[in-house]
Amino acid sequence: MPAAKVTSEEPLNNNDAKWIRLKKIHYTDQDGKQRLWECAERTTRKESGIDAVAVLAVLRSKTKAFPISTVIIEQYRPPLDNIIIELPAGLVDAGETPEAAAIRELKEETGYIADMSIEPESSPIIVSDPGMTNANMKLVVVSVLLEDKLETPTPHLDVGEHIITRVVELDKLDAELKAYDNKGFTVDARLSHFAAGYEMARRISKGAFM
Amino acid sequence: MPAAKVTSEEPLNNNDAKWIRLKKIHYTDQDGKQRLWECAERTTRKESGIDAVAVLAVLRSKTKAFPISTVIIEQYRPPLDNIIIELPAGLVDAGETPEAAAIRELKEETGYIADMSIEPESSPIIVSDPGMTNANMKLVVVSVLLEDKLETPTPHLDVGEHIITRVVELDKLDAELKAYDNKGFTVDARLSHFAAGYEMARRISKGAFM
Repeated sequence: MPAAKVTSEEPLNNNDAKWIRLKKIHYTDQDGKQRLWECAERTTRKESGIDAVAVLAVLRSKTKAFPISTVIIEQYRPPLDNIIIELPAGLVDAGETPEAAAIRELKEETGYIADMSIEPESSPIIVSDPGMTNANMKLVVVSVLLEDKLETPTPHLDVGEHIITRVVELDKLDAELKAYDNKGFTVDARLSHFAAGYEMARRISKGAFM
Repeated sequence: MPAAKVTSEEPLNNNDAKWIRLKKIHYTDQDGKQRLWECAERTTRKESGIDAVAVLAVLRSKTKAFPISTVIIEQYRPPLDNIIIELPAGLVDAGETPEAAAIRELKEETGYIADMSIEPESSPIIVSDPGMTNANMKLVVVSVLLEDKLETPTPHLDVGEHIITRVVELDKLDAELKAYDNKGFTVDARLSHFAAGYEMARRISKGAFM
């Protein structure tokens, strides 16, 4: 399905790697026993101590002309050799706050401008796959206020960046992600869990599990 | 805070690693340009093609004696040198379905037995950090039916496994996770996103963002 395609892969050692590296951790467990763990980490973490941010943009109409929606992206990811469905996201630059990174990435990847009259809500620092890596991130929820039409602005992509944006009603997000999977795309676990939680609350409010 | 503690760490190359490895990917991008990507992967993936499962157990009372709840775990993770708050989870063994792995891990880590009269609901295969690794997983939602008391059974942990379980009302999950962060624990991003989605649906149903 993707127009991009892996052509070959080869083992990589730390000395030849620029973005990530492996390390062996020696630790004392709760019983006082010396043990080992293997872990991957990004080499790019800056003084903020936070690798990345993802943005949940709450798109809503000043006149309530359309249901509350969000924007997700389709992006080719070489590790999976597939197009992955994710929230807008990116690494935190040096000297940047996570919230500034979130607003910047939202604008670059989707063209939407966060409404700063409503304070962004940042999660604590959370970890993406703590058994395997030390990668961490924040989820930043921002508001985007639109008039009565769900405009889809032009992203500000770098040369070589290929991202397709898609606006989805929050009430339909879980179903849309399953439809993406059925079409051969792969969904990011964090976005999928957000949608599963949203759907769980909706089902419970409708009397499911009773 | 954790009784376990990292004592030292050192660079690790693929030849000395057992559980994970680095690779360099050559790919053709959407413009036909040859490009490189660096990625970490688990060496342990079996024929199921799925690295891991996480379990959202819906704990509920046959007599509606307590609010719908779930069980989360506290577990020391060497890559973060901290106790991480996660859903019960584990790797999929050879010859095992993701659903069987989920039910096994739930029993081992928490002691709860999934009620198989209600079909488990599995997510598609989702990816935990697709810019950095090819790690994938399924989220399996299972039902645990209890009488009128929220029993906390005894887990079946392996020697050297240190896991503390905690039962939380779904309606209080997001607040509990934030409280864990305030106390110095770190929360898994997937669990955090589930709670954020759940909370978003609840807020919208109460008229927020209007």
